[in-house]
Amino acid sequence: MLRAQILSIGDELLSGATVNTNAAYLARRLGEIGIPVRRILTVGDDVDEIVRALHEASEAEVIVSTGGIGPTHDDVTAEAVAAFLGSPLVMDEGTLERIRRAFQERGATMPESSAKQARVPKGAILIENQVGMAPGLHIRKDGRQYFILPGVPSEMQAMTESYLIPALREHSGGVVVARRIVRTTGIYESALFDQVGDLTELKGLGVKVAFLPGVEGVDIGLTVEGKPEQEADDLLARAEAVLRARIGEWVYAVGEVGLEEVVAELLFRTGKTVSTAESCTGGLLAHRLTNVSGSSKYFERGIVAYSNQAKVQILGVREETIRAHGAVSEQTAIEMAEGVRRISGTDFGVSTTGIAGPTGGTPEKPVGLVYIGFADGERSYARKFIFRGERLFNKTRATQAALDLLRRELGRRLE
Amino acid sequence: MLRAQILSIGDELLSGATVNTNAAYLARRLGEIGIPVRRILTVGDDVDEIVRALHEASEAEVIVSTGGIGPTHDDVTAEAVAAFLGSPLVMDEGTLERIRRAFQERGATMPESSAKQARVPKGAILIENQVGMAPGLHIRKDGRQYFILPGVPSEMQAMTESYLIPALREHSGGVVVARRIVRTTGIYESALFDQVGDLTELKGLGVKVAFLPGVEGVDIGLTVEGKPEQEADDLLARAEAVLRARIGEWVYAVGEVGLEEVVAELLFRTGKTVSTAESCTGGLLAHRLTNVSGSSKYFERGIVAYSNQAKVQILGVREETIRAHGAVSEQTAIEMAEGVRRISGTDFGVSTTGIAGPTGGTPEKPVGLVYIGFADGERSYARKFIFRGERLFNKTRATQAALDLLRRELGRRLE
Repeated sequence: MLRAQILSIGDELLSGATVNTNAAYLARRLGEIGIPVRRILTVGDDVDEIVRALHEASEAEVIVSTGGIGPTHDDVTAEAVAAFLGSPLVMDEGTLERIRRAFQERGATMPESSAKQARVPKGAILIENQVGMAPGLHIRKDGRQYFILPGVPSEMQAMTESYLIPALREHSGGVVVARRIVRTTGIYESALFDQVGDLTELKGLGVKVAFLPGVEGVDIGLTVEGKPEQEADDLLARAEAVLRARIGEWVYAVGEVGLEEVVAELLFRTGKTVSTAESCTGGLLAHRLTNVSGSSKYFERGIVAYSNQAKVQILGVREETIRAHGAVSEQTAIEMAEGVRRISGTDFGVSTTGIAGPTGGTPEKPVGLVYIGFADGERSYARKFIFRGERLFNKTRATQAALDLLRRELGRRLE
Repeated sequence: MLRAQILSIGDELLSGATVNTNAAYLARRLGEIGIPVRRILTVGDDVDEIVRALHEASEAEVIVSTGGIGPTHDDVTAEAVAAFLGSPLVMDEGTLERIRRAFQERGATMPESSAKQARVPKGAILIENQVGMAPGLHIRKDGRQYFILPGVPSEMQAMTESYLIPALREHSGGVVVARRIVRTTGIYESALFDQVGDLTELKGLGVKVAFLPGVEGVDIGLTVEGKPEQEADDLLARAEAVLRARIGEWVYAVGEVGLEEVVAELLFRTGKTVSTAESCTGGLLAHRLTNVSGSSKYFERGIVAYSNQAKVQILGVREETIRAHGAVSEQTAIEMAEGVRRISGTDFGVSTTGIAGPTGGTPEKPVGLVYIGFADGERSYARKFIFRGERLFNKTRATQAALDLLRRELGRRLE
């Protein structure tokens, strides 16, 4: 099996001005044709650093670099590659002519600095640049293959698709790195891990398992390496089934799908409608429910009842309830959900009330305390949560909990 | 001068499933205290690979790792660090107790796997985790400092701010890489660039200028490298003054500040209150206005009037208006703003109505058409915008336009 190393070149990456999305793109594409990436190294626009990095990459059979082949003073990758190969840089007349023509076609004269992009290490195969000016380079040395690509994402991606992937696919032996994401919410990473339990069966299938916690829950990444595509898919399906048997209750999606999309799909299927009454989440729940195209089919209205007056006046929460239990209470959450359902005429009412923080907490009602209310005309109830984070984190977690409650209620109706 | 190397740990980075935003964040923050990052290396969740990477990082005086300190089987960073140090992993009873208590406070029992996060290499200084469970580690060895941080961005960032930056600032030798972001909204990048005009004066100050367009507007990045902090600040202040003289009208903030924070500050200063009536933005405007702590002082309520019925019933928009002009119209926007102001008793009412897309557009009312309404009891008006993007992009642009309208209205009252 071939292995790859990515070499990202650019001062802007080392300063943090640019996030290295190129490496993620390349890693994904290489993985998809069965070539796992073992290391990603970022160095600056410096000849010595680049040469050293090329020497260090000797454990991989495929080395892909991005960046440093533009026209300005700080683009030194071609020079470094020439030094690494021990070959001189030579002017490629065909490339020079192509660059000159490209400027002419735009009614411009080629700037002097652009000629630099036609100077390439002797013996390198040139990779056509369909988007920009400088060609990429393909070099074979000591049984390894080096691909020198631009740093501009659109140019890099075009060369990856038109040259790199076709060139490597035949060597990868028809095997892939296949991935599947199983998304969960409402359970701690450690508790999920314990409930998944023994990983022997999954390991026996050759499936690698990764737990990836985030604000919206814990994703479980399943990966199969070095198998033909169909076999890899089958193994992932079996691994997913194993997980579902153990933690199915917490799984809301497979793949890069948001919980709001899952809930929207359930609302479309059941034909049910929903309205929201929010306090601490301040509109984020309505925003997420309306992020799905066609949401006007199921979402009628949302009330962000931030003040107590709004809770009483619009939602019909009783002043007595707020006085006796407080605005952040199970009872208020229930009356909010019932109220918004009543005034909007929807099937469901969902509410949030809590303390997003960082101020406003008390020993009895700490920052992060949130009640999610639900009403469907037959039953009303509220669930209590305590999140522990910053304001936006708490708001996001609370909407995730509210959406998950909706998901479970809708799922029950489809059983 | 200290130099840093970043070690990013995680299979999900090597597979391309996750983009390495942590490295960019750390590089930026280290640069700001004058510690340039020389290399960023990404390796997988593998003990041998991590140990090797720690040995290879010997040219830097500061090594910061992220990732691999969670509770599951693939979190092996602590084990690797212990192997690198030649120290055993020991159970830290204080940390174990803290984790157990954290679960108790949420009404849960600590899952068995969480105990792993309290196992730390002997001799390491523990860095408190204010967001999650596992502590970070600070180790000194052979004249170098190692900081072992979590991979979850919120946890990593909290430790960077509370511990890493304070610990390193004193060693940074007095020179800095100083950056200042001048944030603009409501103007195209090319128009802004033309209006800024000749960059000679800024270059003469030794200030590098970068135009960074994004969903919320165009940021202008100003950078000064290798100067003492005070001198760098003076140069940036002069550069900012040059920009403000040319494009001041479009500048809403300097620094990493959101427009909602700027508006909140203006509302706090003027003592004014606001309520919102949203259609196409679906709650995002209320969400942004309530993202600021203390927002209950100025935000009274928000109505997400998605259906026409809700617009009529709650906001008092006249059925005749919707029939004659449509729900997406200047007139409806105005009546929505007036209506929410009237029922909530706030100083201002702000409204949005439009077509977020991707469906619902017509030749006369295309996807991206949005009206922003405003009412303050004396004047009511609406402004028309056409955005060109996907649903979430259009929602975000529309809230940005609404917040900028509020910013300008409030600014006028402070003149």
